[in-house]
Amino acid sequence: MPEPHAPIGARVVGVLGGMGPSATVDFYAKLVRHTPALRDQDHLPVVIWADPTVPSRQDALLAGGADPTPWLEEGVRHLVDAGAQIVVVPCNTIHAYLGPVMADQPVEFISIIDTTVEAIRLRGTRRVGLLATDGALASGIFQSAFDASGIECVLPRPEQQQKLMRLVEAVKAGPVEHRMRAQVAELLADLREQGGATTVAGCTEISTLLSDLDSDEADVIDPALELALRTIERATPR
Amino acid sequence: MPEPHAPIGARVVGVLGGMGPSATVDFYAKLVRHTPALRDQDHLPVVIWADPTVPSRQDALLAGGADPTPWLEEGVRHLVDAGAQIVVVPCNTIHAYLGPVMADQPVEFISIIDTTVEAIRLRGTRRVGLLATDGALASGIFQSAFDASGIECVLPRPEQQQKLMRLVEAVKAGPVEHRMRAQVAELLADLREQGGATTVAGCTEISTLLSDLDSDEADVIDPALELALRTIERATPR
Repeated sequence: MPEPHAPIGARVVGVLGGMGPSATVDFYAKLVRHTPALRDQDHLPVVIWADPTVPSRQDALLAGGADPTPWLEEGVRHLVDAGAQIVVVPCNTIHAYLGPVMADQPVEFISIIDTTVEAIRLRGTRRVGLLATDGALASGIFQSAFDASGIECVLPRPEQQQKLMRLVEAVKAGPVEHRMRAQVAELLADLREQGGATTVAGCTEISTLLSDLDSDEADVIDPALELALRTIERATPR
Repeated sequence: MPEPHAPIGARVVGVLGGMGPSATVDFYAKLVRHTPALRDQDHLPVVIWADPTVPSRQDALLAGGADPTPWLEEGVRHLVDAGAQIVVVPCNTIHAYLGPVMADQPVEFISIIDTTVEAIRLRGTRRVGLLATDGALASGIFQSAFDASGIECVLPRPEQQQKLMRLVEAVKAGPVEHRMRAQVAELLADLREQGGATTVAGCTEISTLLSDLDSDEADVIDPALELALRTIERATPR
């Protein structure tokens, strides 16, 4: 293996992606954009395994569909074999399955859920709105992490939650359109009305619809962006 | 290994990336956006090895800098080990080194140069403008492929070529800004004045600056987009 040119000591970032593909592109773009770099050689080494054939997390969590675990195990194996030293997964919902998969891996795992909780704590807020898929909500991954940190959580009203699910499917089905961004704004407004001044965009398909402007605003936490920033911090030599 | 869910028979796409990272993001985004898919499981399995520490291609081709070949060999090995069946490299300049590297690999290699020549032929044009790095021009990769197909080629005037190189470095150094897109428009205008009605944006950093509008126009061929379309075609089961 050739000696790394630079940055000396950077750790190889493994991205278990494909859930969905657009969300992986969005995460990778954020990782690259936020890495302090003046030339190619300043960037982090990244290996991505994106197998979009991982069975639907919604079907698995809500309707007794196929357990995605074997696909995750295979993906992590590919990343570790390729030399990944950190593994991240830019999909919130799949974190319901990642605990056992990542438990005995010889790599650092950065959870998008833990990173999000940390981002909420740093903002000093104790009450957030949560945009997450039906499957993620049924699994309780966000709520149990919020409970453990004393964070209260407001959910969209049922008809808004249905809109959110249609929006997630629309992102998976095709390119981002202007009206999709408008629908996210609507979802955020609904949560603000219910007292969720800060909202967690807890689904990476929703992350793809946030403009840089949104995520710079204090009232939206983008877990995909937070995960990218944390990954850069952990992978960059000190 | 779990059975693939769908699409049955899709081939695993290996992307040797990182040259530079933004260009890899751009290529991956084009691959995902142009894959006909209604859900995650309709997308192609993709593995990306992005090692931005590959030594500078400009230094290697113009100033006797380190030969990037060992980095390429290592990257291809990772992709093949991970199960890639097709390998693509979203960097035009590095194709000067890929012939020997890809010669005996057990995978299909889709060359961005060959794909670009095919795109030119399909448009029935025999004279193109060429935006390519100093290194790519010195290596003659485009010109020899053009010669073999009877395609005439117009290059930017020296001061415009210098602007192009500064633009490529700017893309590698930071996020895309509006003025960068304006500079590409200037480069295209210069080539049109010289009789290159159709221009090949033969550097993947320049590709990141083309809006969908540009590449839909008949007068710009985006090799990154052409490579994505060809990859989708070759990886999708018939």
